[in-house]
Amino acid sequence: MGGDKAPAVVIEGMCIARERHPQVKFLLFGDRLRLEPLLAKVAARDSCEVIHADQVVKGDDKPSQVLRHGRQSSMWLAVDAVLRGAAGGVVSAGNTGALMAVSKFVLRMLPGIDRPAIAAFFPTERGETVVLDLGANVECDAENLVEFAVMGEVFARIVLGIERPIVGVLNVGSEELKGHDTVRAAAATLREGNLPIRFHGFVEGDDIPKGTVDVVVTDGFTGNIALKTFEGTAKLYAHFLRDAFFNSRVARLGYMLARRALLKVKLRTDPRRYNGAMFLGLNGIAVKSHGGTDAVGFANAIGVAVDLVSQGFNEKIKDELVRLHAPGTPPAQAAAI
Amino acid sequence: MGGDKAPAVVIEGMCIARERHPQVKFLLFGDRLRLEPLLAKVAARDSCEVIHADQVVKGDDKPSQVLRHGRQSSMWLAVDAVLRGAAGGVVSAGNTGALMAVSKFVLRMLPGIDRPAIAAFFPTERGETVVLDLGANVECDAENLVEFAVMGEVFARIVLGIERPIVGVLNVGSEELKGHDTVRAAAATLREGNLPIRFHGFVEGDDIPKGTVDVVVTDGFTGNIALKTFEGTAKLYAHFLRDAFFNSRVARLGYMLARRALLKVKLRTDPRRYNGAMFLGLNGIAVKSHGGTDAVGFANAIGVAVDLVSQGFNEKIKDELVRLHAPGTPPAQAAAI
Repeated sequence: MGGDKAPAVVIEGMCIARERHPQVKFLLFGDRLRLEPLLAKVAARDSCEVIHADQVVKGDDKPSQVLRHGRQSSMWLAVDAVLRGAAGGVVSAGNTGALMAVSKFVLRMLPGIDRPAIAAFFPTERGETVVLDLGANVECDAENLVEFAVMGEVFARIVLGIERPIVGVLNVGSEELKGHDTVRAAAATLREGNLPIRFHGFVEGDDIPKGTVDVVVTDGFTGNIALKTFEGTAKLYAHFLRDAFFNSRVARLGYMLARRALLKVKLRTDPRRYNGAMFLGLNGIAVKSHGGTDAVGFANAIGVAVDLVSQGFNEKIKDELVRLHAPGTPPAQAAAI
Repeated sequence: MGGDKAPAVVIEGMCIARERHPQVKFLLFGDRLRLEPLLAKVAARDSCEVIHADQVVKGDDKPSQVLRHGRQSSMWLAVDAVLRGAAGGVVSAGNTGALMAVSKFVLRMLPGIDRPAIAAFFPTERGETVVLDLGANVECDAENLVEFAVMGEVFARIVLGIERPIVGVLNVGSEELKGHDTVRAAAATLREGNLPIRFHGFVEGDDIPKGTVDVVVTDGFTGNIALKTFEGTAKLYAHFLRDAFFNSRVARLGYMLARRALLKVKLRTDPRRYNGAMFLGLNGIAVKSHGGTDAVGFANAIGVAVDLVSQGFNEKIKDELVRLHAPGTPPAQAAAI
């Protein structure tokens, strides 16, 4: 029921995802009276089950209110299905803060993790880079950033298949003295090398699109603004291109010839392609879709969840965290995480 | 002497600027032995005077060291020329932190301003938007952000010629409850309306390229990362375009036809075009060029300084600040600034 055009977009997205992943079954949580008519005509009907929920979490509901009064909401019931093992993971385009609060409350944190983080992939010159946190924590201390580095590194290893991902901390310059105390303290811990992480040092905003490192660690305030500036700038560039192409007949002809190539560029920077941000640090798979996405975008968010579930991401990250905290590792490490 | 390719780029930039602004005279501060040979062959030689400086501020010099031991540096002497009235403004591609520290120490702050901010224009769908702070203050409180709003508003009014610029505070969402205490407190002061500012409310990262408001206010940490993410994403898009065009013969032909249009897009997003960030809040004109820019970019930074000087920016902003603090204005206003 969450997102700007729910539930229609969610159901259309499910249909696309079902084509891509025919083995997947869907549990749809929401108002049966609104869902059933939409489902009547879709081929994916036999792959899904509707679970009725009276309540809906609205976009402007406060997370604390949802925690107190939202137990019968479609969001809560969907997250609860992951806890009960009825679902392998949950995907929602609804209220981010509420989804995070409910997921944290219901699924609990992974052992050794203090705060969850929202992680997603950014397209870069070299491929893809994981950036976290994208908005779960607007204020972070150095320990939180170190935790994000650990989780982001495991995420990049498992999902991108990079053997030893390189991690950087986002800052206003690359020199050790730059930035504020929090980033300097986090970098100092990561630099000491007691953690099994390849630490690059500080990176700057342009290092995200350059793909300088595999994992960029930052607080949720800065990360959210970097993400949206990134998306907005790609749109601006596309806007300038359209302007230029349709301003002259020759350019328009050039556009016609290069259309296929330009479509490729559009696809490479399409925010829908990168839709589906993972809530890292929870004891279960929870994926957040952009509220304003369309069916293709929502299907991609489902794809992220399907990948994570089928790769056993949750078990793998638990193992990694246990390994990090295991006896035999230097004490500074356990203290840092 | 500052910047990656100094002093050659600075002198070439001066030559371009001199073509554009034939009335301007230049004082060049630096090592006479290195400058004179470069100047021997340039037409702008008669528009400039070399003032020898033994010392050079290096890119990694700490601002505090420069304040203690840098009085004979080319940077210090150049800023001092503004204080003495020998120069209308100073332009440097050198160490940003040192330039800020020296400018603050030598030129002092404007009355009523506690901290200077770095401001620059971003290209947007609607034209140009002023963003500040871009890196002078990595940590800011609510009062600092309100000051930035006041200075940014005056800057947009004078330089962009917008009669009543609209101001927004950068945040992770547009709702009043979003973000951390600092942005909420700053927005509350601006919303109360005791300041003669058209306050839009919170804006997000993608509102910068959209041009939702005329002035975007943020702390120097976030602003710097937004700026560099913006620049990096524009480069990434250009990189994807090149890739696409040169991957097929038909696309290459399309490129040939659309080349002039594409060049226009390149120019519109060219960071050189937006080179030249103003240090706002100082009692004098100081403009910072990107350290890595070329002669065209440096000439543009000179252009910013020329505009500000010829428009009497410093006198105008002083008047505005006096007006803001004048008796008769509500007391909350004076307290907020």
